[in-house]
Amino acid sequence: MNESTGLFAAAEVGNTVSKADYERELDALRVQLLNLQYDLRERGFSVVLLIAGDDRPGCVNLLRNLHEWMDARYLQNHVMFGSDHADAAERPALARYWRRLPPAGRIGLFLGGWPSSLLRAALDERWSSAEFDKALDHLSRFEKLLVDDGTLVLKFWLHLPRNVVQKRIVAARADPEKHWDFAQHDWDVIEQYDEAFDLIERLLRRSNRVDAPWEIVESTDARYCDLRIGGAIARALSARLSDPVPVPEKVPFVAEIDGHSLLGQLDLSLTVSADRYESELTALQALVNQLSHQACEAGIACVFVFEGVDAAGKGGAIRRLARALPVQHSRVIPIGAPNEVERAHHYLWRFWMRLPKPGEIVVFDRSWYGRLLVERVEGLVPEEVQQRAFDEINEFESTLAEDRFVVCKFWLQIDKDEQLERFSARARTPYKKYKLTPDDFRNRENWDQYQVAAHEMLARTNTSYAPWSLIGANDKRHARLQVLRIVADQLTESLAEAANTATESGRMRGKQGKKGKKGKKGGKGKAAMKRKKK
Amino acid sequence: MNESTGLFAAAEVGNTVSKADYERELDALRVQLLNLQYDLRERGFSVVLLIAGDDRPGCVNLLRNLHEWMDARYLQNHVMFGSDHADAAERPALARYWRRLPPAGRIGLFLGGWPSSLLRAALDERWSSAEFDKALDHLSRFEKLLVDDGTLVLKFWLHLPRNVVQKRIVAARADPEKHWDFAQHDWDVIEQYDEAFDLIERLLRRSNRVDAPWEIVESTDARYCDLRIGGAIARALSARLSDPVPVPEKVPFVAEIDGHSLLGQLDLSLTVSADRYESELTALQALVNQLSHQACEAGIACVFVFEGVDAAGKGGAIRRLARALPVQHSRVIPIGAPNEVERAHHYLWRFWMRLPKPGEIVVFDRSWYGRLLVERVEGLVPEEVQQRAFDEINEFESTLAEDRFVVCKFWLQIDKDEQLERFSARARTPYKKYKLTPDDFRNRENWDQYQVAAHEMLARTNTSYAPWSLIGANDKRHARLQVLRIVADQLTESLAEAANTATESGRMRGKQGKKGKKGKKGGKGKAAMKRKKK
Repeated sequence: MNESTGLFAAAEVGNTVSKADYERELDALRVQLLNLQYDLRERGFSVVLLIAGDDRPGCVNLLRNLHEWMDARYLQNHVMFGSDHADAAERPALARYWRRLPPAGRIGLFLGGWPSSLLRAALDERWSSAEFDKALDHLSRFEKLLVDDGTLVLKFWLHLPRNVVQKRIVAARADPEKHWDFAQHDWDVIEQYDEAFDLIERLLRRSNRVDAPWEIVESTDARYCDLRIGGAIARALSARLSDPVPVPEKVPFVAEIDGHSLLGQLDLSLTVSADRYESELTALQALVNQLSHQACEAGIACVFVFEGVDAAGKGGAIRRLARALPVQHSRVIPIGAPNEVERAHHYLWRFWMRLPKPGEIVVFDRSWYGRLLVERVEGLVPEEVQQRAFDEINEFESTLAEDRFVVCKFWLQIDKDEQLERFSARARTPYKKYKLTPDDFRNRENWDQYQVAAHEMLARTNTSYAPWSLIGANDKRHARLQVLRIVADQLTESLAEAANTATESGRMRGKQGKKGKKGKKGGKGKAAMKRKKK
Repeated sequence: MNESTGLFAAAEVGNTVSKADYERELDALRVQLLNLQYDLRERGFSVVLLIAGDDRPGCVNLLRNLHEWMDARYLQNHVMFGSDHADAAERPALARYWRRLPPAGRIGLFLGGWPSSLLRAALDERWSSAEFDKALDHLSRFEKLLVDDGTLVLKFWLHLPRNVVQKRIVAARADPEKHWDFAQHDWDVIEQYDEAFDLIERLLRRSNRVDAPWEIVESTDARYCDLRIGGAIARALSARLSDPVPVPEKVPFVAEIDGHSLLGQLDLSLTVSADRYESELTALQALVNQLSHQACEAGIACVFVFEGVDAAGKGGAIRRLARALPVQHSRVIPIGAPNEVERAHHYLWRFWMRLPKPGEIVVFDRSWYGRLLVERVEGLVPEEVQQRAFDEINEFESTLAEDRFVVCKFWLQIDKDEQLERFSARARTPYKKYKLTPDDFRNRENWDQYQVAAHEMLARTNTSYAPWSLIGANDKRHARLQVLRIVADQLTESLAEAANTATESGRMRGKQGKKGKKGKKGGKGKAAMKRKKK
C-alpha cells in the first residue's frame, strides 16, 4: 500500500482490464444500458449521476464514453468543476443544480457537481471544519430531498494514486501535443493534494448516505474504471426498475379541530374608513416605492408570498403592493396546478426556477405552501411526504435567508360568512365570474380541514428568518394597508442590515449570515409572527 | 394643433372620457377580454402585445390595468425599457425577445420592448440614419417572421403632448410623495425630446407594417387611453379568432432530379489509411483543442451544425470533434422531433434558446435545417412556409454572424449503397440496433427527393457568412479528419479577426461587423462552399 491511506486504500490496488475483456464486456454493457434507458423513460423517477474525483481527465473521459454508449437524447451532461463554470456566483448556490435536475424518465450526469464546487470553495476560502461541515450538511439535505422524491442518486469518485498522477504530469509536460486531453485540465486540486486530501476524505465520509453512497473507483486503468462504473450504473438502474411501480392512493386528511388555533385568535373585526384608506394607501405606496427602489439598487432579492383561503383578497392586496414596486424589477407570479414539465420534477423545482436575482422582487400569488394546504386536505400525497414537506420548506427558506433574501409570507384570513358574501358578489359581477370555480365550493365544504391544515402550516413554518404575517382580512382596506406596512418595515430592516454588513459581504458564503444575525430574535418563537394592530 | 407635428397631430387633440362612461364601458370590456383570452387558449396562435411610447408612466399604468382586467395566468408581462434591463448586453440582441415570446394560446405583453431598446441605443450611441435603418430592418424582419408564423402582433405607441409632459414634471417635482408613480421613471427620452422626436417618427413610419401596424394613442387622459387600447385589443383578437381554423394538409414534394447537383459533383472516393488516420487525428485534435480553448478565452461563440442523410456518420464525426473541445464550455445537442412546448413556438425558437454564450461552443446534431429537409420531403408544411424558411434561416445566421458567432455547417454525404451497408452493420451490432428505426427505411425510399431538397438547401443557404462544408463521407476516417481541419481553419481565421478588431469591439453593435468584413469573399458565391481535398 502506498502513502495514501484510509478510504482510498482499496482504490490503489492496481486493477486493470485487458483490451479483449474490455471489448467483450463493453458490447454487452452498452446493450444493457440502452435498454435500461428506454425502460426508464416509461417510469416516474429520474436519475442523478454524480461523477467527481481527483482524476479530472478520467472523469471527462468517462463522461464522453457514457455519452457514446448511451442514447444521448435522454442523457443530459452538466460539466461543473470547481468554481470555473459561468454561474458559480449565483445565489442561492444550489439554484445552479436545481435548474439542471433531470425530469422523470431521464438521466442527468453531473461532472464535478456540488462536491467539486464545495472542495474548491473550501480550499480557496480556507474554511474552518465547522464551515465545511455546515456546507456539507446543506448538500446532504439536498441529496436527501432528491432521494426522498424517488430520484436515484448514484455517486462515483474517481481516484488516481499520487504516483500515477505524478507520472502523468511529467509525461504531459514532456509531450503536450500528445497529451492535450490530459494537459488541458487545471491541476489545482492535485497540486493542493496534501491540503485537499483531508477535505476529500471528510467529504466522502460525511456525504456517504445509505440511500446515496459514494463508490470510490480506481481510475488508473481507464478500461477498468469504465466497466466498473458502467456496470454499477446498470445494476443500480436495473434494481430500481424492478421495484414495483407505486400506485398513488388518496390519503384522507383527518382534521382535529382545536379551539385555540392561531387563526382563531386573530381579530378579524378591524376596519379602516374609506377616507383614511385613500390617504394612507398613497403614503404607504410612496414609502414602499422608495424603499423597494433602494432595495433593488442595494442588490437585495425579495420574495413576497401570499396565501389564504379563496376570496380572502390576495389579488387585491397584491395589486396594491405591485403598483408600488419598481415595474422593471418586480414580477407577480400566479401559481396554479403544475404543468407537465413541472410535474416531472420535485414540487419545489418550479419555485427554484422562479427565484428573484439580486435586485429583483418576486411576488408569489400562492406558492410552495400548496403542498401543505390543498394537496394535504385533498389527500393527494401520502402522510410521510407531507410531513417531510415541513422540513423541506423550512430548509428551502433557510437557504434563501442565508443568502440574504428578504422573505415575507402573508396569510390573509377571512371568516366563513365573509367568504360566502364574496362568492356571491363575484357571481353578480360579470368580469369576476371567471374567478369562481367548482373548486371554490369544494374547498369551502372543507373549510374546517383547511383551517386546521393552515394552523399547522403556520405554526411549523413560522421561522425567525421567514416569519408569517397573519392578516385579518374581513376588511379589505385594513388588509391591504397591513401588507404595505409590513413590507415597508421589512425593507427598512433589510436595508439597515445590508448597510451594516456591506463591508463583510465578501465573507458571507458558508457563514451564518442573516439567519445568525436574526438568532437573537429566535427566542420569540411563534411570537415572531407579525400581527400588527393599527 | 400645438408644436408637435406629423404622426402625432391626431394624438394631441385632447381626447377624454368621463368617469361614468369609463366605468360602464370598462365592465363590458373586461368581460370581453376575459372571454377572448379563454377562446385564445384553445387556438394555435399567440399574441404579442407591444406597448411603447414617450409616456412611460402611462405605459406602466396601462400594463397594470391590463393585468388587473385580464386573467394573469395567461398574460405574461415583460418590462423592457431602453437598456435598463438585465440582459441588455446579451447577443444576439434579439435573443432576449425570442426567449420571452409567448407560446400558442397565450398573450405576451412587452412594455417598451424592441422599439424602446432601439431608440435608447440610437440616442446613446449617436447612430447615423443608415445604422438606425439597418437595425430597424432587422426588427421589422423579426416582426414579419412572427406575423408569418401566425402570431397576432399588436403595437401601441402612447403619446403625451410636450406641454402635458412639462406640466407633469413640474407637479412631480413639487410633490414627489404624491407623484411617486410618475417620478420613479427616468426622463431620458423626454429630456432628449427634440433629438428623439425625429427618431421616433422614423421608427413609427418605417416599422408600420400592414400586418402589424402602429396605433398611436393620446395618453393625456388615462381613461381614454385605457378604453381605446383595451377596445383595440379586443377587436383585433375577436377578428382573428373568427378566422377559420386552418386545416393542415400534406403537401407532396415534387423533386426534379438534376444531374448537375452540388452533391453529384462531390468526390466520395477519398480514403485515409488507418495508420495515417490515427496520427492525423491526434495532431488535429490537439490543434483544435488548443484553438478552441483560445476561442473560448477570447469570448467567441461557436455554432457547429451537422446534417446529412441517415448513417452518414454525423455521430462519429461529432464525437471526434467533441473530444477535442473544452468540455466545460461545449455542448452537443441532438435535435429530434420538437416537444410540446417547442411545438407551441416558432420552429426557430428552440435553437434561439440553445445558442452559445460568448466563450461557448454548441454542436448541433441536426438542426433548424430539418425544416428544409425532412419537413419538406414529408410535406409537413405548405410550400410558402418552406420558401419563407430559406429567408428566415439566412436571416437567423446573418444575425449570428453580425455578432461574430462562428458558424460552421457540415453536410456529410454518402452514396446509396454505402447507406445500405451501414444499415446492415447496425442491424448486426446489438448496441447499434437502436439507431435503426422504420423512419430510416422510409427516408431511404425517398432518397432522390432528399438529395434534391438537400441540393436546394445547400445552394440557397450557402452564404459568405455561414458557408456549408460538403464532406464526402463514404470513408468515415476521411470525413472525420475533414471536419477537424475545417474547424481548425475556421477557428484560426476567427481568432485572427478577433485580434484585429478587439480594439473596435465597443463600436460593433449596429455596424456591419463580420458580415461586412467577409464581403470581399462574397464574389465567390457558391464557390465559398468548402470542399477541401486532401
